[in-house]
Amino acid sequence: MAAAVDFYFDFSSPYGYFASTAIEALAAKYGRSVNWKPVLLGVLFKTSGAAPLTEVPLKGAYSRHDFERTARLHQIPFRLPQKFPVPTQAAMRAMLWTADAHGAARATALAHALFYALFVDGIDISAPDAVLQIGVSLGLDAQLLREGMDSDAVREQQKQENALAMQRGVFGAPFVIVDGEPFWGFDRFAQLEHFLAQTGAPAAPLTAERSASAPMLRKG
Amino acid sequence: MAAAVDFYFDFSSPYGYFASTAIEALAAKYGRSVNWKPVLLGVLFKTSGAAPLTEVPLKGAYSRHDFERTARLHQIPFRLPQKFPVPTQAAMRAMLWTADAHGAARATALAHALFYALFVDGIDISAPDAVLQIGVSLGLDAQLLREGMDSDAVREQQKQENALAMQRGVFGAPFVIVDGEPFWGFDRFAQLEHFLAQTGAPAAPLTAERSASAPMLRKG
Repeated sequence: MAAAVDFYFDFSSPYGYFASTAIEALAAKYGRSVNWKPVLLGVLFKTSGAAPLTEVPLKGAYSRHDFERTARLHQIPFRLPQKFPVPTQAAMRAMLWTADAHGAARATALAHALFYALFVDGIDISAPDAVLQIGVSLGLDAQLLREGMDSDAVREQQKQENALAMQRGVFGAPFVIVDGEPFWGFDRFAQLEHFLAQTGAPAAPLTAERSASAPMLRKG
Repeated sequence: MAAAVDFYFDFSSPYGYFASTAIEALAAKYGRSVNWKPVLLGVLFKTSGAAPLTEVPLKGAYSRHDFERTARLHQIPFRLPQKFPVPTQAAMRAMLWTADAHGAARATALAHALFYALFVDGIDISAPDAVLQIGVSLGLDAQLLREGMDSDAVREQQKQENALAMQRGVFGAPFVIVDGEPFWGFDRFAQLEHFLAQTGAPAAPLTAERSASAPMLRKG
């Protein structure tokens, strides 16, 4: 089995959201699983000196336009929330706890729901209560999730995940690393596919059995 | 005739060089001409607070890798010069003077030669003498070109072109504006093509006559 694709993202990045709608199918096409790795862009930006796209003069107006155009082109439902960007500590902690407590498949489902809440339904997921409600809607226990998000262990893990990402050279999001090869941005997914096609394991035919135990939903 | 494509670039940007190898064929495919518009990224970056890609921690190493990968993928000859990035005032002035004195076609030929000198032959085009030599190799008069590059008129025009670009929202390069629609980056050329295909005039068949008077080589 070829190595997994490491998929780094921040919940507040529209390009990360776009990438999240495509990464699983792309990886699966070349026999790869996906490791979903939430990070905090604010922490990463301290290293690279970057600022949120929409807050940069000129670039901000352009990026808002580009979000809409990119979503249209890829037919991804999208509406930039009124409050943007939003802090994503709560969302990231919820995902880390869910992965630890219930495995990667549940955590990935939560990630999709959080992205969708922010960029389709316009829900402010910076609020821990909003994150909790989304978790509950996916069958997670409200009390355990709340305690998990507030736990020292998860806070510590959050710091470590950001530090580890930076150690690997991740300076933005979405960011994919596969077989040591880095790809920054949803607009590198064509190059990512080219790379996977050249070096990835040939895609096995998707049988019912394989589909039922899809490795990308299992691996942590 | 549909409106021209405005193509903004800085001679020191590898992505601008990659774009320069593709923009004419892309525009011509949809019946458009190209206005070649050199700018100074250093001036634009003062507004947006950006820094040269390769000088940003982490992002610098990635971008060097991405330059090579992108060149390989598009089969564009490329070697990052040892001295990089380089100041491009002299190259920009030479192009402005050539456009004024000899028309857009000669200026475009000079632009291609300058990009090629920097990113294929590793020539330091920050040196006015290197720019002069390249101009002479294209049949330009050394004395007139030197005087033109040093003239107050061209220096003033250089300032104005940068200011006009910023007024239009250009904050990076390469940057294309067509029918008011902005596209930042060589990695938006697929979206640019999508846009041209939807809104551009249908491409006329390229006859020998039309080829000989290709509008993209004539318009200023």
